[in-house]
Amino acid sequence: MNSKVKLLLISNTYAYGGGFLSHAKDEIKSFLSGIDSLLFIPYALKDRDEYEDIARAYFKNLGISLNSIHKFEYPKKAVSEAKSIYIGGGNTFRLLKELYDLDILDDLKSAILKGVPYMGSSAGIHMVTPTMRTTNDMSIVEPPSLDAMGILNFQINPHFIDADPKSKYMVETREKRLEQYHEDNDYLVLGLREGAWVRIENSKIKLGGKHGAKVFQKGKQPKEYKADSYIKLPVE
Amino acid sequence: MNSKVKLLLISNTYAYGGGFLSHAKDEIKSFLSGIDSLLFIPYALKDRDEYEDIARAYFKNLGISLNSIHKFEYPKKAVSEAKSIYIGGGNTFRLLKELYDLDILDDLKSAILKGVPYMGSSAGIHMVTPTMRTTNDMSIVEPPSLDAMGILNFQINPHFIDADPKSKYMVETREKRLEQYHEDNDYLVLGLREGAWVRIENSKIKLGGKHGAKVFQKGKQPKEYKADSYIKLPVE
Repeated sequence: MNSKVKLLLISNTYAYGGGFLSHAKDEIKSFLSGIDSLLFIPYALKDRDEYEDIARAYFKNLGISLNSIHKFEYPKKAVSEAKSIYIGGGNTFRLLKELYDLDILDDLKSAILKGVPYMGSSAGIHMVTPTMRTTNDMSIVEPPSLDAMGILNFQINPHFIDADPKSKYMVETREKRLEQYHEDNDYLVLGLREGAWVRIENSKIKLGGKHGAKVFQKGKQPKEYKADSYIKLPVE
Repeated sequence: MNSKVKLLLISNTYAYGGGFLSHAKDEIKSFLSGIDSLLFIPYALKDRDEYEDIARAYFKNLGISLNSIHKFEYPKKAVSEAKSIYIGGGNTFRLLKELYDLDILDDLKSAILKGVPYMGSSAGIHMVTPTMRTTNDMSIVEPPSLDAMGILNFQINPHFIDADPKSKYMVETREKRLEQYHEDNDYLVLGLREGAWVRIENSKIKLGGKHGAKVFQKGKQPKEYKADSYIKLPVE
């Protein structure tokens, strides 16, 4: 991994009982310290203006001014001039489709590889992994491809949830779905429980927040990681 | 809807505590009465031989001999000669991709429009709706399109589940997902709870099994249907 890359990838935009990104406030403050402006990408939700307002109020409180990309006439220029970037949660298919339609995936990738700090929550996480094939979202629209930026060389499953042995609901457990993913794909998958995040700086992956993570590697037993530990991939 | 079309669309392949299609046995028996052979399409699961064995044992018990399409050298011929067709559950993306790769979607559509009885459970349901945009499955592989046969002019969401007000899990409820679907699409969606099925004959849609269904129409309040009632669409 390029050592300039700075990522903060948060499993969920809203934690139970909390407001917009409230559970990750201290981490976000530290991650963006010294930065006074942020480019927000609201395309995972339909009402972009409302989403912008919510995000603006949050970042204003941290002393960071926010501009939403949907208000720019030239989105490519907005990306190239951004001092930091945040892509919020919502529907991953809708989000990726819009990034393809605007033709800004490569611009985002260049910015991130140059060291512009990138934050993503939920759907926003999938944009920096190789593909969006480990999303939990419903395929309500059709992006031209499920390939994403591939800044990371592994997949993430946000909102990872352990099987409930008492459940009578008969769809596949998350673990079963990731097993099915590995029947047809090779990338390792980091299952990030709600309340958890990973911060990636200097090529190191640090797990933060609550509830930990579980790493799924094809043909191996899943491996559990606790909050505040470093994750070394591939698992040995 | 073409009045020759005969469909039996079952929300789940396995019901809680039951075996393969055991919850729908009487309905399947009645739907396929007078038919002695069935073409099985196992592509939603990776292990096709194992899936074939499970399905064969089930249908043998009903006096119906089963041939699985993956054993045929010419799948198009298998479809054109089928007396009845069943597509089983699993991962919908994998299933649709395989039907595109084999180029048999049009053949299946012709057969069904000519009156060959079609059964689909879970993933198999999505094949006869306009698209697979209302699946619950993980996008583990990438079909060339999410468009399906469009025998029906509405969508179905199998394994429909009502929101649990006590849940602390922060992903979108199913109802919220279908609301997001309607932000970008117009087709009505029939949310078929587990244990439920619809049988469509003579252009009539009869809801069977347990737990009923909920119909979601863009810009309207959802409407509840009880088992054994007829569903008239669009909802007035």
